[in-house]
Amino acid sequence: MGLSVKLINDLSDGTKGPNNLITDVAGVKVGQITIDEGDVHTGVTAILPHQGNIFREKVPAASYVINGFGKSVGLVQIDELGTIETPIILTNTFGVGTAINALTKHMLDQNPEIGDTTSTVNPIVAECNDGDVSNIRAMRITEADVMAALKTTETTFEEGAVGSGRGMMCYDLKGGIGSSSRLVKVDDTHTYTVGSLVMTNYGFLDDFIVNGIPIGKPLAKMLAADKKKEEKGSIITVLATDAPLNSRQLKRLAKRATVGINRSGGYIGNGSGEIVYAFSTANLVNHFADDDFDTIDRFNDNHIDLFFRAVAASVDEAILSSMVHAKSVVDRKGRLRLGLVDAANKLVQEQPDYTEMVERVLTQLGVVQ
Amino acid sequence: MGLSVKLINDLSDGTKGPNNLITDVAGVKVGQITIDEGDVHTGVTAILPHQGNIFREKVPAASYVINGFGKSVGLVQIDELGTIETPIILTNTFGVGTAINALTKHMLDQNPEIGDTTSTVNPIVAECNDGDVSNIRAMRITEADVMAALKTTETTFEEGAVGSGRGMMCYDLKGGIGSSSRLVKVDDTHTYTVGSLVMTNYGFLDDFIVNGIPIGKPLAKMLAADKKKEEKGSIITVLATDAPLNSRQLKRLAKRATVGINRSGGYIGNGSGEIVYAFSTANLVNHFADDDFDTIDRFNDNHIDLFFRAVAASVDEAILSSMVHAKSVVDRKGRLRLGLVDAANKLVQEQPDYTEMVERVLTQLGVVQ
Amino acid sequence: MGLSVKLINDLSDGTKGPNNLITDVAGVKVGQITIDEGDVHTGVTAILPHQGNIFREKVPAASYVINGFGKSVGLVQIDELGTIETPIILTNTFGVGTAINALTKHMLDQNPEIGDTTSTVNPIVAECNDGDVSNIRAMRITEADVMAALKTTETTFEEGAVGSGRGMMCYDLKGGIGSSSRLVKVDDTHTYTVGSLVMTNYGFLDDFIVNGIPIGKPLAKMLAADKKKEEKGSIITVLATDAPLNSRQLKRLAKRATVGINRSGGYIGNGSGEIVYAFSTANLVNHFADDDFDTIDRFNDNHIDLFFRAVAASVDEAILSSMVHAKSVVDRKGRLRLGLVDAANKLVQEQPDYTEMVERVLTQLGVVQ
Amino acid sequence: MGLSVKLINDLSDGTKGPNNLITDVAGVKVGQITIDEGDVHTGVTAILPHQGNIFREKVPAASYVINGFGKSVGLVQIDELGTIETPIILTNTFGVGTAINALTKHMLDQNPEIGDTTSTVNPIVAECNDGDVSNIRAMRITEADVMAALKTTETTFEEGAVGSGRGMMCYDLKGGIGSSSRLVKVDDTHTYTVGSLVMTNYGFLDDFIVNGIPIGKPLAKMLAADKKKEEKGSIITVLATDAPLNSRQLKRLAKRATVGINRSGGYIGNGSGEIVYAFSTANLVNHFADDDFDTIDRFNDNHIDLFFRAVAASVDEAILSSMVHAKSVVDRKGRLRLGLVDAANKLVQEQPDYTEMVERVLTQLGVVQ
Repeated sequence: MGLSVKLINDLSDGTKGPNNLITDVAGVKVGQITIDEGDVHTGVTAILPHQGNIFREKVPAASYVINGFGKSVGLVQIDELGTIETPIILTNTFGVGTAINALTKHMLDQNPEIGDTTSTVNPIVAECNDGDVSNIRAMRITEADVMAALKTTETTFEEGAVGSGRGMMCYDLKGGIGSSSRLVKVDDTHTYTVGSLVMTNYGFLDDFIVNGIPIGKPLAKMLAADKKKEEKGSIITVLATDAPLNSRQLKRLAKRATVGINRSGGYIGNGSGEIVYAFSTANLVNHFADDDFDTIDRFNDNHIDLFFRAVAASVDEAILSSMVHAKSVVDRKGRLRLGLVDAANKLVQEQPDYTEMVERVLTQLGVVQ
Repeated sequence: MGLSVKLINDLSDGTKGPNNLITDVAGVKVGQITIDEGDVHTGVTAILPHQGNIFREKVPAASYVINGFGKSVGLVQIDELGTIETPIILTNTFGVGTAINALTKHMLDQNPEIGDTTSTVNPIVAECNDGDVSNIRAMRITEADVMAALKTTETTFEEGAVGSGRGMMCYDLKGGIGSSSRLVKVDDTHTYTVGSLVMTNYGFLDDFIVNGIPIGKPLAKMLAADKKKEEKGSIITVLATDAPLNSRQLKRLAKRATVGINRSGGYIGNGSGEIVYAFSTANLVNHFADDDFDTIDRFNDNHIDLFFRAVAASVDEAILSSMVHAKSVVDRKGRLRLGLVDAANKLVQEQPDYTEMVERVLTQLGVVQ
Repeated sequence: MGLSVKLINDLSDGTKGPNNLITDVAGVKVGQITIDEGDVHTGVTAILPHQGNIFREKVPAASYVINGFGKSVGLVQIDELGTIETPIILTNTFGVGTAINALTKHMLDQNPEIGDTTSTVNPIVAECNDGDVSNIRAMRITEADVMAALKTTETTFEEGAVGSGRGMMCYDLKGGIGSSSRLVKVDDTHTYTVGSLVMTNYGFLDDFIVNGIPIGKPLAKMLAADKKKEEKGSIITVLATDAPLNSRQLKRLAKRATVGINRSGGYIGNGSGEIVYAFSTANLVNHFADDDFDTIDRFNDNHIDLFFRAVAASVDEAILSSMVHAKSVVDRKGRLRLGLVDAANKLVQEQPDYTEMVERVLTQLGVVQ
Repeated sequence: MGLSVKLINDLSDGTKGPNNLITDVAGVKVGQITIDEGDVHTGVTAILPHQGNIFREKVPAASYVINGFGKSVGLVQIDELGTIETPIILTNTFGVGTAINALTKHMLDQNPEIGDTTSTVNPIVAECNDGDVSNIRAMRITEADVMAALKTTETTFEEGAVGSGRGMMCYDLKGGIGSSSRLVKVDDTHTYTVGSLVMTNYGFLDDFIVNGIPIGKPLAKMLAADKKKEEKGSIITVLATDAPLNSRQLKRLAKRATVGINRSGGYIGNGSGEIVYAFSTANLVNHFADDDFDTIDRFNDNHIDLFFRAVAASVDEAILSSMVHAKSVVDRKGRLRLGLVDAANKLVQEQPDYTEMVERVLTQLGVVQ
């Protein structure tokens, strides 16, 4: 549910949506399955772009690769046709194949025409590598897990170390799933929502900054987090809006995710797969339309900064929200991997000199203990 | 084995390799599994870039999307890092998830470090939709099928309606797997090989031209092939070379596949997923290298036309070879889907006026009956 | 005016427009200035997308780089905003700076707000290197030349070795400016026009094919044209349509230019700058619109093949038309550079064995002598 | 000369180079011409990649478009061939044509083969719109100005409101030219330099943050800077290094400029042309090489984060340096446009409550008054 406070570096003129979640965009729902079995700590997060038949009523969409050290799929066709035609599945890197299979079967079930009388379908699956925390080599995700996530979608959902975010680490602290939203008032009669959902698994603790406060440095010292190690992280961002933006404009929005990602100390590391998907629930594209044309609203690019600012702010907040909500987790090797709040409290306990800095950070993040 | 004759429109100064197959590039091997069960007519084709551990010794690589109506995977990371680190699997559209899973397990078996002490791995899987001929909704491909293809790789292999090409249709005739190669003499001491392997599933018969002979038109009339229908095809091209080309240069090669593809009548249809992968077996990239630098050969772009011409010629020939070698197949609805040679013979039988044209075409394709 | 006959390899279902020129797209006009002074043989060709104020009423547009060995400008902003806001100027490589200056002044004259109360303007200038025929180092193009081309635009115009095409060579024969058009009947109530204009300066004579007839080989032998030399050519393609296609769809059209370019023997040479610009005269974008939205027609991608085929056919024909119309020219070194028709006649005279082949070629090109 | 202090959010492990300028990369020189005539406040900044003949010894290079609302030229060929073959000229938007002409003549003078016996040349010119401060419609830049900048290049140079930065505004304060450098110690025997030079003309004052201190907000209030207005800004970044990075790797570096740009409050506005050029002075590409191959060092991507961090830090600092060094300027309408230091002092004078914040900011920026 995002953060309950305003970030100092909040670039957004809009206000937060009612739930401060991506599901503030009408029709969007999120479902999650969390798996904790032995040394496996992983899961699945599913995002439904709308509540109808997504193959039949595709959403205008775009993707953007900030850094391509990643295995997320579906981008080629999104780029060509400017649409997404399935739910979006987030999971760990080695769950991608299974997620494709499950999503394909899900779509085949709903659409007997696919692969028979009409074309095939383009599954959208995004991933980060949770191998630091979870035994990813176990390839534990099953098609049933993916189906279950698809079937439990709601308009509210948990953030933190849940769903596909279960095993993710962000800035060497526990990361996971975060989300937030912004209302964008375009004019007196048009207010739209921009929502973001992130799966956070990137960054070095030493670089971590909250609203300009370099809290990462003392935390990194305390936890002996090592900036020199090979980053194997990633961050997946999904953007949703109900504004009538076309695929070119959505790609422009997707590019602005990087502003939010870097605000807290990211620098687009070599090993970080930073992939963005963006879709609009307006101007849906009918798969079986016989018509050669339809009539749609076109948004004036001159005013698109309103959306760019909303994206930057929402992604920034979603990332911090994923960390604020993430409880500490015991990893595949039995190590306790601290969430941000636990780490901050530990810092105060061990080094009282940082009490004031930690309090400022937690206050700015809206954490009430 | 390509064609036994020279095409009139052959742009290549080079000569054909010994087997006129992609495996003329030293180290490259191809394995195939063909599945014919009831209404399922599909398969798997696997390409090994070299005979060592591909994850540990990655091949410089590039990909190129000619038209992105497709679900092939792995491109994002190839574009970022300029390498391929797994075998390349070709299969039908709904086999992609399973192929990813099998390929991942294959790599995990070979490399205990993956997902544990080092990064994950980027599976390369390409697909076309064989749903016109095969019951693709059955999702018949198993991980065992993929493993079997990986284990049966050889330096010679069958072309035509085999492997992943079993159910593919090219220019409304039977398509499938085709391959050819060219020797590129750069100077007196350097001769390289460029090989191509295609999975052909695109085009309208009415447009089909062989060496400028519009044989497609009478064939289309005879078979009542319908140019108006929605194309759901695709063509996958894999290029291999032993020349020391870097990823930027390999991308330039990959772009030239389109010359070969269009030579026989393609026009990059809306529904055609046209994806190209290109790799070099020179200047391998060591995954675990501690060294900050290595020393490599760099090829002078001023002379790269030699390779461009070889790619155009080889892809053109590989496509025709896939059709020449493709036997007729009974499809999922019991219809006989003619191969090019069978269709040509039928035309002569039914309309003797075309005898001369057919003979010219077959002669130019090197078909001896 | 394109060719008066149908090409055998004509992929278009549409018919030719009334003038078989890009100006068949209503509103489009073309103006040309040809310069022949001493060893300078060059010029300017200007294309007006419509007859209003183009800065105030921008055209939806896209560009595509087939091969980027070129200096054409304006692509960065077209890609970002999806519009063209100036006329399009074609000239020689070293005329680009001057063309930018002239075009900028032309736009400043028409729009006092530019650079004062509103943004700047993005000049579109495309080029090929005519240095083989003309003394390009003289940098002869003046702003007055560009202005003159802009002021002489008409709905009919000359093709061949005129305007910016004056010094261009195509397949080692005289190239230049070519154009053609196709009518695209989408349904009973919607017929659109697709027009192309090319500046041809690419290819090797040995590769040149007309409708499958390898006429280039004997011509190359006769003229001792050398395939080994460094290609320094290029081809610029401008596509226009009145169909309501958005920038994503126009980029897809632009990509299909390559089909037409390669049909006659091109293979996208290393030194060939192959750049495509495409625009639509529908759904204009108002620069000063206060409105946040407007309402537009959206074309169904499922039917876009009609346009793809029209592009391939029109570009193929425009290239041949540039060659058919190009008279022979004496180059900067005093050599006579033959046009296609002169070269063909010379071949018949010198080698009567080729009489039949030449006649077939000229007949298929619609040349009546 | 960059800043004399370390930024808190400094991501770089490297230390600053001796001059903390892009010219710390051996061979790189910068020359500038500043023009103040009536209502014209503009100029030219020239960057020489090395001191030899750049056309004959090209530098490996890449470009990257963060946001494409801009008219910078040369990117198409850089992307294709991976090299830069001329000096880089920075100027105002309407000076691009003249800069191309001057740069072309400069190259023709040095290389009699260009356009005669070898190919043409690809001029690199980048621009921002200084029309807010300067009468850009006057098109005042002359070829002589560009030539003069090219002839006055040195290894030290002024930053701030000088050269092409004379009329630029950054975060609604005076921007201009800024530069800094980082040493990158790869291993005990290899230390490289990464330098950046920026032309800053972007951002809203309200968003401006220094090391997390939101100094922009009170400044914006004082100066009544309006976040709602249409941004017409841009930022050009030039990166140089002596490390042996290839064009793919240099493109990866170029992408990281965005981290530095956004660190102080940027969000990639709609109207901001954000273009990055990056080049290496190692592994030069010889234009006239007859050899088919040469031997080069290849840098291991696994260690490239060292360079990514250096780029982020250097660009961040170069932007702040452009503002710290920029004196206040009277604009084309007679308004005084404050530099950061003047604005900060004015804030202290008018609103003493901000004394502490201003002092912290100026201290962190290394400003000693």
